Amino acid sequence: MHEVDKGYFTEDNSAEVVISRIAESTDPRLSEVVAAITRHMHAAVKEIEPTQEEWFKAIQFLTQTGHKSDDWRQEFILLSDIFGVSMLVDAINNRKPSGASESTVLGPFHIPDVPELPMGANICLDGKGHPMLIKGRILSTDGSPISGAKIDVWQTNDDGFYDVQQKGIQPEFNLRGVFRTGDDGAYHFWGAKPRFYPIPDDGPVGKLLGALGRHPNRPAHLHYILEADGFETLVTHIFDPDDEYINSDAVFGVKESLLAKFDLIEDSERIKEEGAEGPFYEVVHNFVLAPEK
Amino acid sequence: MHEVDKGYFTEDNSAEVVISRIAESTDPRLSEVVAAITRHMHAAVKEIEPTQEEWFKAIQFLTQTGHKSDDWRQEFILLSDIFGVSMLVDAINNRKPSGASESTVLGPFHIPDVPELPMGANICLDGKGHPMLIKGRILSTDGSPISGAKIDVWQTNDDGFYDVQQKGIQPEFNLRGVFRTGDDGAYHFWGAKPRFYPIPDDGPVGKLLGALGRHPNRPAHLHYILEADGFETLVTHIFDPDDEYINSDAVFGVKESLLAKFDLIEDSERIKEEGAEGPFYEVVHNFVLAPEK
Repeated sequence: MHEVDKGYFTEDNSAEVVISRIAESTDPRLSEVVAAITRHMHAAVKEIEPTQEEWFKAIQFLTQTGHKSDDWRQEFILLSDIFGVSMLVDAINNRKPSGASESTVLGPFHIPDVPELPMGANICLDGKGHPMLIKGRILSTDGSPISGAKIDVWQTNDDGFYDVQQKGIQPEFNLRGVFRTGDDGAYHFWGAKPRFYPIPDDGPVGKLLGALGRHPNRPAHLHYILEADGFETLVTHIFDPDDEYINSDAVFGVKESLLAKFDLIEDSERIKEEGAEGPFYEVVHNFVLAPEK
Repeated sequence: MHEVDKGYFTEDNSAEVVISRIAESTDPRLSEVVAAITRHMHAAVKEIEPTQEEWFKAIQFLTQTGHKSDDWRQEFILLSDIFGVSMLVDAINNRKPSGASESTVLGPFHIPDVPELPMGANICLDGKGHPMLIKGRILSTDGSPISGAKIDVWQTNDDGFYDVQQKGIQPEFNLRGVFRTGDDGAYHFWGAKPRFYPIPDDGPVGKLLGALGRHPNRPAHLHYILEADGFETLVTHIFDPDDEYINSDAVFGVKESLLAKFDLIEDSERIKEEGAEGPFYEVVHNFVLAPEK
């Protein structure tokens, strides 16, 4: 006790000494957060017992991660992603009532102000890949359809890139759209079967992934933001369960409930009925929104 | 179990899922370190329950800390310092047998190849501050004097700066020296009473210190590296116990055993005997080196 009172450091009381220095006037939330980080960080160091060289390697890694980050590249978010921290923060902030669709990470490729399209529109503007019909309903947890729900969807093209990654190559707003449900809560639109793609792996985070024997790929998915008056906004994906990386998403975004079914439709009657030019993939997926608290 | 096997993420099993992705071929030490960091990081996030905004503030803080770091400034080391992590790593790597002098952090101001001086030399080349006589013996844990021990010492001048921080203002090698003990293990040299000084606080780490109600100052001290054949090298400080910041070192470097005594000598006999021009400070401090394992 004597030593803690004086603020002198020992290996045993290290975290307590650091925490004891937080002034009482400190913002209570900051104080709580810094105390928790200090306790867990000291516990990790005591467990790991890094050598001075290992400690310095960690310092260098963090420095390189900072240097790789700029207005266009956020390497610390990638670091958070590959450690599952982004998904954990998402999970903590989006606990859903039973029966509601689950959330997953937003990712860096959403853009605002995408034009609203009529139901049934084709968002695949580059004509690449396998045509895909996506349809279903937006429902409340009590099973009733939600009218006027806004569906904001975006996905990669068949080369595994979002339009914003290939400005001048892909058409503007390629594979993005905003739709609004009618009274039946139903939606349908055409896209292209999405493809897996790697997160940027030419920086320190990619190097770490490699050293851990992990690949940088995200399994094929569509992104959604679903909004409706009186309901919690849902940020989520749906995934292709047959993607080769479905069990090893580099950023841990996959949840069992987010697996959709991508059915290849080859039946000529159905092809004709949907006005398609040939075989297409069909994804039927309902989303269930939680009522606003 | 089923979900962990498939690698799907839930709030409960988050750390386990991330750890399960580390390939078996991974370097065992890297695997161990990453698993420990993952476990402690997820535990911290679960305790803190950050909002998305708080998480992003943390991302921005780390990014700014990286951007502030360059060849001359290491803001991540400062961050490690003010969280007591640098001291903890030092403590873990320098557990000393009973009776041996304790270590503390090296700090960023050591330079190699400082000229060796004859015992009794005055390392205060700018003539500023209060003259100070430092003397004592370098001993083994069995009490016997260590012959040929190399004493590498450095300290601030009376303005609170190291020579390397004021190139062109302070003389080269001001308040630095290397001495070597004779058979009696004794040392003595002249310096100037050191002063407290702030760690660099114009970056994100300084801002955090301010938000926590903490000052950036280190209490007055002298730095030492002590080396002798057959003994563990000791990196340490001695501190002025009367410094106003002695109980609140910004980097937690103070240990009770590192407190020296800085006595003001005003007795004219002693002044004459030591060849001083007036009153001076005297610090008598023995260092005890641990035998090499």
